[in-house]
Amino acid sequence: MRAVRLLGPRDLRVDDVPDPVVQAPGDAVVDVTATAICGADLLPYRGYVPGFEWGTTMGHEFVGVVRAVGPAVRRVKPGDRVVCSSTTSCGTCYYCVRGMAAQCEHLALFGFSGAYPRLDGGQAERVRIPNADRVLWPLPEEVSDEAGVFVADILSTAFRGVERADLRLGDTVVVVGCGPVGLMSVMCARRLAGQVIAVDTVPARLEQARVLGAVPVDAAGDALAEVMDLTSGRGADAVIEAAGAVSALTSAVAMVRGRGTVSVIGAHFEPEFPLDMGRMFAKEISLRVSIGSPTDDRERVLALIRGGVLDPTAIVSHRMSLDDAPEAYSLFESREATKIVMRP
Amino acid sequence: MRAVRLLGPRDLRVDDVPDPVVQAPGDAVVDVTATAICGADLLPYRGYVPGFEWGTTMGHEFVGVVRAVGPAVRRVKPGDRVVCSSTTSCGTCYYCVRGMAAQCEHLALFGFSGAYPRLDGGQAERVRIPNADRVLWPLPEEVSDEAGVFVADILSTAFRGVERADLRLGDTVVVVGCGPVGLMSVMCARRLAGQVIAVDTVPARLEQARVLGAVPVDAAGDALAEVMDLTSGRGADAVIEAAGAVSALTSAVAMVRGRGTVSVIGAHFEPEFPLDMGRMFAKEISLRVSIGSPTDDRERVLALIRGGVLDPTAIVSHRMSLDDAPEAYSLFESREATKIVMRP
Amino acid sequence: MRAVRLLGPRDLRVDDVPDPVVQAPGDAVVDVTATAICGADLLPYRGYVPGFEWGTTMGHEFVGVVRAVGPAVRRVKPGDRVVCSSTTSCGTCYYCVRGMAAQCEHLALFGFSGAYPRLDGGQAERVRIPNADRVLWPLPEEVSDEAGVFVADILSTAFRGVERADLRLGDTVVVVGCGPVGLMSVMCARRLAGQVIAVDTVPARLEQARVLGAVPVDAAGDALAEVMDLTSGRGADAVIEAAGAVSALTSAVAMVRGRGTVSVIGAHFEPEFPLDMGRMFAKEISLRVSIGSPTDDRERVLALIRGGVLDPTAIVSHRMSLDDAPEAYSLFESREATKIVMRP
Amino acid sequence: MRAVRLLGPRDLRVDDVPDPVVQAPGDAVVDVTATAICGADLLPYRGYVPGFEWGTTMGHEFVGVVRAVGPAVRRVKPGDRVVCSSTTSCGTCYYCVRGMAAQCEHLALFGFSGAYPRLDGGQAERVRIPNADRVLWPLPEEVSDEAGVFVADILSTAFRGVERADLRLGDTVVVVGCGPVGLMSVMCARRLAGQVIAVDTVPARLEQARVLGAVPVDAAGDALAEVMDLTSGRGADAVIEAAGAVSALTSAVAMVRGRGTVSVIGAHFEPEFPLDMGRMFAKEISLRVSIGSPTDDRERVLALIRGGVLDPTAIVSHRMSLDDAPEAYSLFESREATKIVMRP
Repeated sequence: MRAVRLLGPRDLRVDDVPDPVVQAPGDAVVDVTATAICGADLLPYRGYVPGFEWGTTMGHEFVGVVRAVGPAVRRVKPGDRVVCSSTTSCGTCYYCVRGMAAQCEHLALFGFSGAYPRLDGGQAERVRIPNADRVLWPLPEEVSDEAGVFVADILSTAFRGVERADLRLGDTVVVVGCGPVGLMSVMCARRLAGQVIAVDTVPARLEQARVLGAVPVDAAGDALAEVMDLTSGRGADAVIEAAGAVSALTSAVAMVRGRGTVSVIGAHFEPEFPLDMGRMFAKEISLRVSIGSPTDDRERVLALIRGGVLDPTAIVSHRMSLDDAPEAYSLFESREATKIVMRP
Repeated sequence: MRAVRLLGPRDLRVDDVPDPVVQAPGDAVVDVTATAICGADLLPYRGYVPGFEWGTTMGHEFVGVVRAVGPAVRRVKPGDRVVCSSTTSCGTCYYCVRGMAAQCEHLALFGFSGAYPRLDGGQAERVRIPNADRVLWPLPEEVSDEAGVFVADILSTAFRGVERADLRLGDTVVVVGCGPVGLMSVMCARRLAGQVIAVDTVPARLEQARVLGAVPVDAAGDALAEVMDLTSGRGADAVIEAAGAVSALTSAVAMVRGRGTVSVIGAHFEPEFPLDMGRMFAKEISLRVSIGSPTDDRERVLALIRGGVLDPTAIVSHRMSLDDAPEAYSLFESREATKIVMRP
Repeated sequence: MRAVRLLGPRDLRVDDVPDPVVQAPGDAVVDVTATAICGADLLPYRGYVPGFEWGTTMGHEFVGVVRAVGPAVRRVKPGDRVVCSSTTSCGTCYYCVRGMAAQCEHLALFGFSGAYPRLDGGQAERVRIPNADRVLWPLPEEVSDEAGVFVADILSTAFRGVERADLRLGDTVVVVGCGPVGLMSVMCARRLAGQVIAVDTVPARLEQARVLGAVPVDAAGDALAEVMDLTSGRGADAVIEAAGAVSALTSAVAMVRGRGTVSVIGAHFEPEFPLDMGRMFAKEISLRVSIGSPTDDRERVLALIRGGVLDPTAIVSHRMSLDDAPEAYSLFESREATKIVMRP
Repeated sequence: MRAVRLLGPRDLRVDDVPDPVVQAPGDAVVDVTATAICGADLLPYRGYVPGFEWGTTMGHEFVGVVRAVGPAVRRVKPGDRVVCSSTTSCGTCYYCVRGMAAQCEHLALFGFSGAYPRLDGGQAERVRIPNADRVLWPLPEEVSDEAGVFVADILSTAFRGVERADLRLGDTVVVVGCGPVGLMSVMCARRLAGQVIAVDTVPARLEQARVLGAVPVDAAGDALAEVMDLTSGRGADAVIEAAGAVSALTSAVAMVRGRGTVSVIGAHFEPEFPLDMGRMFAKEISLRVSIGSPTDDRERVLALIRGGVLDPTAIVSHRMSLDDAPEAYSLFESREATKIVMRP
């Protein structure tokens, strides 16, 4: 079968590799019908992931049709349309028993071998799914393949970021960063909030946020002053940081009201982020960081799509063939593409 | 000034009465600009409220313009457009300090003298407001008088019912009863839910619920079976009971999933409601009852209106003059009117 | 091996039966070291459980040592001391993924065949455990067998009842009913509460509650008035109903303050419990029912025992041999015994 | 009357000043019976508070007896024993209405004029209390003056730190820093936790923590490794940082498990605290900062003392006269005293 493999920094190839097969009783094999490139895929692509196993098939955002299942699989069967969580989870560890699959002690991320246990991803014609009863979930008829791809990771991450923001219906929410995850956050926050304020520097992104119902604020100007103006000088009830940048998180902490929450879903790796603990203390702020947990949240995320409440495909900018993966990665890295969905 | 007074069961008159004045340092006097009839007004109207003081001016849903304030009032001033909470609260008792104004130990409900401490209501040209700094709240420019009237009570009640339903974004919610409070509940629940199911027997109400985004289910049929069909046989994550009837609450308990919540905002007075404790136990159900607490919630409720997220005026069926109050009550009691807004 | 089997109403025998064996890859077999009789065991014993399969080995409260495991079991191994949850759970259904094992769609209760899927219990020398990775949990060295038995069910149930009572540190809690589950509730509530009030009619039980730190109140007197006296006339922040009786739950609803919670862990089967909805409405009360969920809570329950914070064995009144099970059931049914632990 | 006034850095005098009087209708005047020195008092004492008004009477931890009240005061009367919150609150602003008195928009801290609005403190024979109905609370007969002093600030702060730690009964909690606030945190955390681990470098403090039920861990050794050992390698469910130091907060973030909470009650003023966002992200940690809110929490804090659940006076090391205030401050600054209570 065809598979998108990363052989070294920016050395991406679409190769013929052996078909995956059921190896353990809980495994399934899925025929991939749609898969997307995630911002996180750029980390190994750029050579930023120490220990990454070159040769791994990329991709943790995909949907497909079940082709085969092991004897212990009960909840899905061949022919089922399914969405696959971006990570595996065991179902029996401390975290899984408590409904925190994203912290599973045996977690593997598809297409991130080396950083996590060996596991090929879904930018391929077929993919092996361990512990399929937990990792796969049926895709309702009303949800298209393209929409389903978002449930595997970034829409679920945004959803989680909104959930962890301690919001109450009618609150004011700021979303800092309007890339794909940020726009998903605007979509989710828009449901709960009385007012969503979107902060970014890129006019096209701000325009997308505006169309989704947010008040756009240009980060190049005095964004803090604008947020204060829009919140009676008090700051927002919650701020969602979806950029993964030091400046974005710094702004987020400045923009939240007393006893408010900064919910971080941008990826952060700074060992010494310069946090304004003076403001954190005076205002009794909560800072809560989340990775996204599609296994825990996917059913409710799917319900939002299915009920027509939100449409993540609004941000798809490119639809390409799996064979064009090298070009797709290049477009995505250069930010010419907002979101690319590939089909085998 | 003109005032709608209840002199005995169904003996409603629009009389000339002395103008109210500031009596205590924390009082305000408000010129009423819009006022509505609430389902609760029908209780004294029908003579169902023991101890009701005949002669009380009716009405706890109103907005207006501040005319005068006492020397201790700091937060509003003459000329301000304001919405008035349906009840007063003291700000210092056990409940008020904890942010539960609806349980204030010194609470009075406007227009319900006798059941609560003496306090004339807002179906009048003017009304005296005790403890105005807590009881009044500025009406944002973008919120019309007619929309503001809903904040005083029924929209805030629906809002509270949705908040106490323990919902998470994307859940399925059933609303049982599609009268004015039920329709407000559909509006609020629609924000959070992946799917809202509305149950009633009246086709026109079900149609209104459908327009607001709910799946309508006729209570005259096998509503329970339909709800189970729509929820993979599991029941709804939460059910909001907004009818205040024994049959409605009985249905609500039957329709909720394991560990789900039945949030009751319908008025109930049954000393021995026949609760299915077998199901409550087997399914570990939570039953939570709420009155509505505009003082606690009004700012966020207003934000939803202001942000264009919901429009409560969609259910106004009649706009009348205060002088037509007797006819208005009669139309409302007979259910020919869904919601009536009167202007002095 | 020896096993306590129920052949018909009150027809309990200790029989020789074949040893259980590993049947599925996820199974374990456990050598039982201690087992207790639960109030729920009296339901089939008295013939109150429709469809109960006569011949089932009784018992869902037990600890032991792992004797054998199937090839898929990873978390326990032969020789491990373990406590077994009272029920099985699948780990993949809607409820299990969300951390609600007590509502598992494939749940079986040990020793309750017929009411649930066929599953022999632990009042035996050995017992087969399906899905052992979820259902068993290692018993820390510091926790005795006898203490561990309580984790399997009633201490975990009391724990859950306290958790669902929406308590905050320093609150006043009433526990209605001071049988074994009620006394466990006093132990748990005592940790969080500023004041625990225990209500029962039996002097010996009230004395046990007093020793555990509660203020005892005789239900034969005017218990409601006493509770009001002890709570500045306001009622308790939360009431835990642990008796499973109509009168107890009726009292509980009367004793709670405005916006307070009645947490029910007593077993209820009334199809039409006469609930005072008038008080529920006026006071905005929450009524939350729980079964107990040892799989979700056992690690934290064990931590309380291990840390010396509470000692459930304080209520063990009889220690007997498995061979004396018929006499033990008789003592327990007549309430001559508070709690009986049997050893094979 | 006699009053402890700060005239410049370390220039503390006990002077005769005019008696305070009722100025506004909501004022009270209290005869102080006991007052303590707080760690925060050292900030102006050392000259670290920009804008501090020299001459202010110090002290925000005190209890006393009401001497006089203004005409609008309803909840306390002359002769009542009362505890005074460390700060005032208005009862009508955004934060007060929501039960967040510590963020009141009109807040003043007793004895911190300049940093907050002018308000003399309680290290004096008498003190004026604005908005007495909110700021004072009756001291139950069973609570001594000396115990009551802790409710005004540091016990309430510790209480709040424990509440914001998202703890569940039976969790493992680490308290970093065992000064007065840290020891109060151990007392409170001990109620909820299965295991409390106390970290400090001072042997006497660790011994005090041990006596209060904590496992002492010397911060001079490999405290992180010890915490991991005590938590099966997972980290604590929650960590309370009560030291207000960069190293303490850094440790706290390292010691918490996945999805756990670091609850900060130590005072922090660093504009660029070096936060390990890599760990925060990978482990999805919540960092929540709190000031303490005696007005919101005092009734429950008092219930813990009254019920004999905890005794804050265990940490009082010195009992002195108000006239010895200069010596008392000196002892406290040098850490020769753990906690000093003074009486006029």
